Amino acid sequence: MSPTTERIAVVGGSISGLTAALMLRDAGVEVDVYERSPQPLSGFGTGIVVQPELVRYLLEQGVELDSISVPSSSMEYVDALTGESFGSVPADWRFTSYDSIYGALYELFGPERYHTSKCLVGLNQDSDAVQLRFSDGTQAEANWLIAADGGASVVRKRLLGIEPKYAGYVTWRGVLQPGEVSDDVWNYFNDKFTYGLLNDGHLIAYPIPGRENSESPRLNFQWYWNVPEGADLDELMTDVRGIRLPTSVHNNSLNPHNLRQFHSKGERLFAPFRDLVLKASSPFVTVVADATVERMVHGRVLLIGDAAVTPRPHAAAGGAKACDDARTLAEVFTENDNLQESLQRWETRQLQQGNAYLQKVKRMASRLQHGGSFEPGNPDFAFGLPAVDEPSVVKNF
Amino acid sequence: MSPTTERIAVVGGSISGLTAALMLRDAGVEVDVYERSPQPLSGFGTGIVVQPELVRYLLEQGVELDSISVPSSSMEYVDALTGESFGSVPADWRFTSYDSIYGALYELFGPERYHTSKCLVGLNQDSDAVQLRFSDGTQAEANWLIAADGGASVVRKRLLGIEPKYAGYVTWRGVLQPGEVSDDVWNYFNDKFTYGLLNDGHLIAYPIPGRENSESPRLNFQWYWNVPEGADLDELMTDVRGIRLPTSVHNNSLNPHNLRQFHSKGERLFAPFRDLVLKASSPFVTVVADATVERMVHGRVLLIGDAAVTPRPHAAAGGAKACDDARTLAEVFTENDNLQESLQRWETRQLQQGNAYLQKVKRMASRLQHGGSFEPGNPDFAFGLPAVDEPSVVKNF
Repeated sequence: MSPTTERIAVVGGSISGLTAALMLRDAGVEVDVYERSPQPLSGFGTGIVVQPELVRYLLEQGVELDSISVPSSSMEYVDALTGESFGSVPADWRFTSYDSIYGALYELFGPERYHTSKCLVGLNQDSDAVQLRFSDGTQAEANWLIAADGGASVVRKRLLGIEPKYAGYVTWRGVLQPGEVSDDVWNYFNDKFTYGLLNDGHLIAYPIPGRENSESPRLNFQWYWNVPEGADLDELMTDVRGIRLPTSVHNNSLNPHNLRQFHSKGERLFAPFRDLVLKASSPFVTVVADATVERMVHGRVLLIGDAAVTPRPHAAAGGAKACDDARTLAEVFTENDNLQESLQRWETRQLQQGNAYLQKVKRMASRLQHGGSFEPGNPDFAFGLPAVDEPSVVKNF
Repeated sequence: MSPTTERIAVVGGSISGLTAALMLRDAGVEVDVYERSPQPLSGFGTGIVVQPELVRYLLEQGVELDSISVPSSSMEYVDALTGESFGSVPADWRFTSYDSIYGALYELFGPERYHTSKCLVGLNQDSDAVQLRFSDGTQAEANWLIAADGGASVVRKRLLGIEPKYAGYVTWRGVLQPGEVSDDVWNYFNDKFTYGLLNDGHLIAYPIPGRENSESPRLNFQWYWNVPEGADLDELMTDVRGIRLPTSVHNNSLNPHNLRQFHSKGERLFAPFRDLVLKASSPFVTVVADATVERMVHGRVLLIGDAAVTPRPHAAAGGAKACDDARTLAEVFTENDNLQESLQRWETRQLQQGNAYLQKVKRMASRLQHGGSFEPGNPDFAFGLPAVDEPSVVKNF
């Protein structure tokens, strides 16, 4: 194809959407990003363990890994009620935050073709183009649509009727600013990734960069609660206005009763974990859900990242998978003469990778959420994307 | 029972909730109404055909029917594309509006025990009482809970997991103020109930009282559109912010694209119907859905009205059914020594009535929405509640 004759629309301006858009723009393609949020995104202090695929584009652009992440030297496995250690293994991960990665990508892409308040509600395609309709009544057209609109993908819903399936648990997330916990607690969690294991659910905690790169690092944690679908989940996910939210209830709209429960359960934890729970200023809750698809290529509509295969967390590579989908798709577009055939090979490989990853994190969850055996350093539970058999279609595979 | 020793909570402060609360309070029971809306309710100009059960309490209190309704002399059956008449039958209905009925009931009940911004999110019961939890983190307790929280009942959802099932069509509603249509159009619809029949969907139109009783009557209409579940329905019910709403999209948050479609389809209608569609200042859209239950009595929780059996419209007696549930339940509470046995008999009769009504409106819809035979004056399609066989448990049955 001739890049300059094609226009590509990316729906969803998060990490994978921006990665795809940047790589395509670098190759001379006309790219517009349509983001439903009225302003650039915020991760509310969400941490991410760095995988190579996540930061590859940024490193290529000369971004220094040190400027967007903090180091670690071990992984710790602890009983979150008693503090008993089940083991420790050396691990030189780097930890970043959603805001660090997104912020760096957004700064590179710039606001000009990043269209905010553009919430996709409908689409059609014909042999030449895809028509997009947004909730504000406006429309857009492009030759291709890259759907990078995440686990709650509207594109996937419209095309396939598929919504993520609740995994049986939610995650409470929180972040602690420097000084919000004692030095002892800080040192307990600093420089490591800590599992707080329980018979019912589990916690994780690790440091992440400061809000600005110049600021001191913060601590972020997640506490996964098993919550049965139905009345209990509905009550937890109903916000202070009485609206049942599908994905997250943010701190400023939490029902105070649910926040009291969070704190009251936190009282029972081993002291350092308890301090994270009780001292986090803005904890919020998100459902954990999975989805997969049989195809990522639907005519001129291409699903990537969570909009294709939505994995629960636990192997710390959901963002890496999404960025790998984005990068390899951009390469298919810019480096292949036989686009249709390359797209099919791209789909085969990325689906294999995505589904293998989904199976892996499901296996991890079946242990982590129910007090199963979770051996320190077990390679089956290692962070990162699984290896795939499919041959590369482009140079960088 | 001794009324004064029991406290009853009514969840849902709409017409049936207020009717139950008023009758119980009149009998000396301590009653609190919990309404999720932050202010007293509005029907946005929604019309209601008066059935005896709907206004019975108000008439007993000395409210004049003339002050809350306008008369009619016929029902008209018209081809909504061509204007051809299929027939006319005499009919002395009276037409009111949601706001007229609700306003009169609310004025009688008063604000003191009518608690706004109380959105139920969870409940528990034991042998003596029901505990209620609201989205603002507050709680309440009562000996009985009357769930009058409508078709989207949270109580029914929490107890039974039942949500209304989409009926395959939506209704656009609009209201025309005096002077917003020509005298010819006004006279075309005045003093009658008009069916605008189509091969795909249908319209109804009739006059309703003015916003204040002193103001001139208005015209209200509904236009029922068949919309397949899935992408089309999701797009229609997604508001201007991009949020998929479960029940209604009000005028100020309609996607402009959907409003344009409404107007563009309206252009094809026979002139008087077209004028209603094009000149209504604030049309809005609501999904049509049904639900039923196997029990209305669940320990100390009692489902009434749409919170028990949610019927689609068409026989103009959904509000009447709800008020009949409310009245007969209040009578069970205030006039029977053997409460449990009376509750069971109440449930049997009201469920029979509700389900018979639901079957009737489903039969009507199967004709009305698909260009089926809809003979003028066919008694099977008459407005009102069906007769029931069950014997009365209280004096007024």
